[in-house]
Amino acid sequence: MKIPKPTLPRGTRDYTPAMMLKRNYIIAHIKEVFEKFGFLPLETPAMENLSVLMGKYGEEGDQLLYKILNQGDFLKNIQNEDLAQGSKTFALKIAEKGLRYDLTVPFARFVVMNQNDLAFPFKRYQIQPVWRGDAPQKGRYREFYQCDADVVGTESLLCEAEIILMMQEVLGERLGIKDFVIKINNRKILAGIAETIGATGKETELCVAIDKLDKIGKAKVFEELSTKGFSTAQLQKLEQVLQIHFKASEKISFLKNFLQNSPIGKKGVQEIKEVFAYLNDFYEGVVPDNVDLDIALARGLSYYTGAIFEVKVLGSAIGSISGGGRYDNLTGTFGLQGIAGVGFSFGLDRIYDVMEEQKLFPSQTQSNTQVMISNFDKEAEKFALPLLKKIREAGIRAEIYPQSAKLDKQLKYANKKQIPFVVLIGSEEMKNKTFTLKNMQTGTQEQLDWQNLLNKLK
Amino acid sequence: MKIPKPTLPRGTRDYTPAMMLKRNYIIAHIKEVFEKFGFLPLETPAMENLSVLMGKYGEEGDQLLYKILNQGDFLKNIQNEDLAQGSKTFALKIAEKGLRYDLTVPFARFVVMNQNDLAFPFKRYQIQPVWRGDAPQKGRYREFYQCDADVVGTESLLCEAEIILMMQEVLGERLGIKDFVIKINNRKILAGIAETIGATGKETELCVAIDKLDKIGKAKVFEELSTKGFSTAQLQKLEQVLQIHFKASEKISFLKNFLQNSPIGKKGVQEIKEVFAYLNDFYEGVVPDNVDLDIALARGLSYYTGAIFEVKVLGSAIGSISGGGRYDNLTGTFGLQGIAGVGFSFGLDRIYDVMEEQKLFPSQTQSNTQVMISNFDKEAEKFALPLLKKIREAGIRAEIYPQSAKLDKQLKYANKKQIPFVVLIGSEEMKNKTFTLKNMQTGTQEQLDWQNLLNKLK
Repeated sequence: MKIPKPTLPRGTRDYTPAMMLKRNYIIAHIKEVFEKFGFLPLETPAMENLSVLMGKYGEEGDQLLYKILNQGDFLKNIQNEDLAQGSKTFALKIAEKGLRYDLTVPFARFVVMNQNDLAFPFKRYQIQPVWRGDAPQKGRYREFYQCDADVVGTESLLCEAEIILMMQEVLGERLGIKDFVIKINNRKILAGIAETIGATGKETELCVAIDKLDKIGKAKVFEELSTKGFSTAQLQKLEQVLQIHFKASEKISFLKNFLQNSPIGKKGVQEIKEVFAYLNDFYEGVVPDNVDLDIALARGLSYYTGAIFEVKVLGSAIGSISGGGRYDNLTGTFGLQGIAGVGFSFGLDRIYDVMEEQKLFPSQTQSNTQVMISNFDKEAEKFALPLLKKIREAGIRAEIYPQSAKLDKQLKYANKKQIPFVVLIGSEEMKNKTFTLKNMQTGTQEQLDWQNLLNKLK
Repeated sequence: MKIPKPTLPRGTRDYTPAMMLKRNYIIAHIKEVFEKFGFLPLETPAMENLSVLMGKYGEEGDQLLYKILNQGDFLKNIQNEDLAQGSKTFALKIAEKGLRYDLTVPFARFVVMNQNDLAFPFKRYQIQPVWRGDAPQKGRYREFYQCDADVVGTESLLCEAEIILMMQEVLGERLGIKDFVIKINNRKILAGIAETIGATGKETELCVAIDKLDKIGKAKVFEELSTKGFSTAQLQKLEQVLQIHFKASEKISFLKNFLQNSPIGKKGVQEIKEVFAYLNDFYEGVVPDNVDLDIALARGLSYYTGAIFEVKVLGSAIGSISGGGRYDNLTGTFGLQGIAGVGFSFGLDRIYDVMEEQKLFPSQTQSNTQVMISNFDKEAEKFALPLLKKIREAGIRAEIYPQSAKLDKQLKYANKKQIPFVVLIGSEEMKNKTFTLKNMQTGTQEQLDWQNLLNKLK
């Protein structure tokens, strides 16, 4: 019988060692920066009760949740009539658990369950996969990682400024990403604009539309707003705001004036001003000019109530690589009121793609084997083993080819694994206690004694 | 309406920051050692097709698999008759995917799918959670981590020796675990014993029984073997082998003699001898005496065919903290024959428990915030921000209390987060440009200028 080749579920993928080394490189920097800013790691289980997950992501989200069949005889109390109710209703009779859809709802659940034990303000980061039953397409998977950091239990806008510092350090200073802009806006400013142009109550329509300004252009955005009932006069007034392209400080002055009759708008301007003041303190007057107040930034998620962020790489088709915002009431849905906070997330897969595009991955990572010792026969192997042990004791990642084989085969293996150096041990080497070190990039070889070999590898 | 407090699914748990810091400490050492020995990271998706998972873990395993409801209208082709077939059959009509049960089957699937791209011998490690619908009990969870390392595509027994080196380095040298024994045996020796005592074909019963020697004692083991049809003469012969308590080298001599008429037994002795010879080379004649050939070691998994390993902590109720073995044909079930390999696994949760028991976790890990700056008012905050930035630039994990608050409240926060130092900035400090550094462990305070503060924190 021919056994069919095994397959992966659609929309999922393996991370090969080559991919993992690059992903781990990104994650290591993200973790280090999160921790340098006082965030501590948290992990929650992949499975959550559906009672926790359902109703948090809208009707569509509920459908995209992966539901897990109850263990044991899950049909015990099921009747034929239940089948007739259809898949949606039936699912909840045979499935009580689901896979997490994001890291935010599990985090809110965690905060509520542990509210008496946590030190507030509570700063946590969380780097774990999430699952969504979306139609797979290029760059969109059904399992993907999120890298979230949140502070809850404080309204201090210092947190907003620190988020910008973290974005700057991870993306710019550490990963070396070029030409990115950190956009910041405030939901209260958007609400103020709605109020000022006489469209209070239509904030959502306004946000949804102007969020697409980058992608579809002003004409299409205005068309959409027209169909949503915005008048020409309203759109003309809106145009004034969307047109401005000054420095952040000038935009703030403009908005202060434009929103003077909107209490919520004025609050938003005050908040954004304070964030920039904090940045100014941190940077001692020289805020990097890739930090931009973008009035057209709206972001999709409905629970944001204050600052919103997004990082985009200029001239790249890859969308936003990081984003977040402030929320007034994350845990309210679980019965705990008054926990405000602000959070953001790095888009691991998109950062990966940008780094490939900009060729930013180092050729050697912190994980690759640094040296391989050849293995030609039992005698050379015996000679090599204590040396291998000492090389590793010096902290060098090393391996020996595990059985004797032809040189060609061994070098091919080293090449495929991108091992930069190979130590060749033959009878000459054993006699003279010298080693031939082959540089796999240049192909050059040199004779070294033990001490020089070790120094070279270090 | 009172909203009910959210809950976690039974048998799952959150890893709080305090737990995560300790877990990450263990994982970091495991990863570093795996990589130092030339293993590269791999990750596979949480969801696998049930066609990949089913039938690999026995009848019971199939029942413990978490099955995921198909997306969309999964009842489309379901009739009332299908319900009547019962949960087991019905499940497979509405669920095509499941959560991985271990890391070995997904690894075998990966090797088969990528056989043309891999550099053999292929060395990978994998640290990911697995899910089993077992009845939860103390220390047994439905989601738990495995830390596996395997080499496939080689029969070299050097790999076995290196596994022992890795166990030694991770558990002993790095984590500092005291009083552990690395037990090694070989399935071929067990088969040889069965053959020698005239019980060929009953290897499984023999293995299952003598594997419990530690737990239930010899009398009970022999009782069990009697009921399985072993004769008194056979048990007397078996007793000779189980009685021996010499050094490994003497045990090998004994077995060589005892198994002289069993070809497979002789092969097993030869293999174990070679593993010890490799250890002897690595350790230049001084193999640590916690490496023990244990003829009573059998291990449960059926696919092992050569060496088997297990690490136990003496005098602890916690079971084995690491284990593994060699297999001839891991990928055969997916149609790829002749891929031999050897692998092992660290039991993260059990290592964690042993380290708590032996009090081995450092009080400060690589992740805790090292210093907190106090925040008494806007002016002090403004003064502090550029300093905070410079402290972080020096690589120190630092945070500022995000809003002005009473000293008490801030110190309580620092204490709860186990932050070892707090910098106090009041009007005196700002005037004199000095800083008060409070040691949170001793309670002592000292006045330092900027440079001394930075040096102290480094």
